[in-house]
Amino acid sequence: MKAGVLFSGGKDSALAAVLLSPFAQIELVTMSFGIVPNDAAAVARALGFPHVTIGLEQELAKTSVDAMIKDGYPNRGINQVHQTALERASERYHFVADGTRRDDKAPLLTLREARSLEDRLRVDYVRPLLGYGRRAIDALAAEHLEVIYGECISFDYEVELRQLMAISYGHEAVNRVFPKKHLQSKVTKRKNAFF
Amino acid sequence: MKAGVLFSGGKDSALAAVLLSPFAQIELVTMSFGIVPNDAAAVARALGFPHVTIGLEQELAKTSVDAMIKDGYPNRGINQVHQTALERASERYHFVADGTRRDDKAPLLTLREARSLEDRLRVDYVRPLLGYGRRAIDALAAEHLEVIYGECISFDYEVELRQLMAISYGHEAVNRVFPKKHLQSKVTKRKNAFF
Repeated sequence: MKAGVLFSGGKDSALAAVLLSPFAQIELVTMSFGIVPNDAAAVARALGFPHVTIGLEQELAKTSVDAMIKDGYPNRGINQVHQTALERASERYHFVADGTRRDDKAPLLTLREARSLEDRLRVDYVRPLLGYGRRAIDALAAEHLEVIYGECISFDYEVELRQLMAISYGHEAVNRVFPKKHLQSKVTKRKNAFF
Repeated sequence: MKAGVLFSGGKDSALAAVLLSPFAQIELVTMSFGIVPNDAAAVARALGFPHVTIGLEQELAKTSVDAMIKDGYPNRGINQVHQTALERASERYHFVADGTRRDDKAPLLTLREARSLEDRLRVDYVRPLLGYGRRAIDALAAEHLEVIYGECISFDYEVELRQLMAISYGHEAVNRVFPKKHLQSKVTKRKNAFF
């Protein structure tokens, strides 16, 4: 089976791909609004997986940012984008995966949303990390990935949405809506790739 | 890392072990009240994994059956036994896994129960199938396992609890509390074991 794995360049989506890789032919998929340039393809190469970028409409980024401003909180806006990203990937793959985890808040589909996605789009939606807690994920990641940490260094929607919000509403809006620290992980290499 | 995977001989727990096996040293663990004999060790051998049996007290089986009779429904009683099984496995392994799935009803720990287990027993509780829907699991199982189906052929708690209920409360109680058909899977062999 071939699986499209939504890929932000960060630890979780990379680990999801690693865990699936003995059982599926992996293609990493990075969604981009084209607001912030990214080097996801180079990171994917370093991991040893094929990679594609899919463009998302900036209209969706605007809708998402407006929802965040209205809520004063980013979760609903981020979930909107993630839903659309999964739908877009479902047009290309029968198995669509992501790196969302048991202890995540957003993006994270509810059980009902996950089933609805599968039923509407006739896709199998797979979350390899959903059954893992934070500590087990950290242990597996330490074993299989080299990771660096920094502010806004991965290629997830959040980096682009923050940028768009800063342009449209100013930096104080970003500071109000998002958590102060936005420490992200970025993988640089795969360790122990045994096949 | 070494992981103890609760093993009923059925498709789900076997697939959970298969999915974990590239990333952990697997030991299959079958819990038994000693009410119904089982050949879990032979099935584990056929899969190529080491296996241990851990005995559970018949007192727990009685408590569980009494809860089922009171409820007229098996879920709470089965969850009680599963919780105890996980606790017992946590005494032996730092990583404890099972084959519970996204679409399961019982046994299935809530998010709160899973975190509580991890915090109380300083264990990592891993559910490799939690992020998979039924269709994806069937596809993976078809690729990796040979499976037969029949009534009460696996070695899960339910078979033993039904037997104890039949002895204590009669067959009509079993027919009232449990679903009419109890079709179970049992693995006979692993396909495509590539390492």
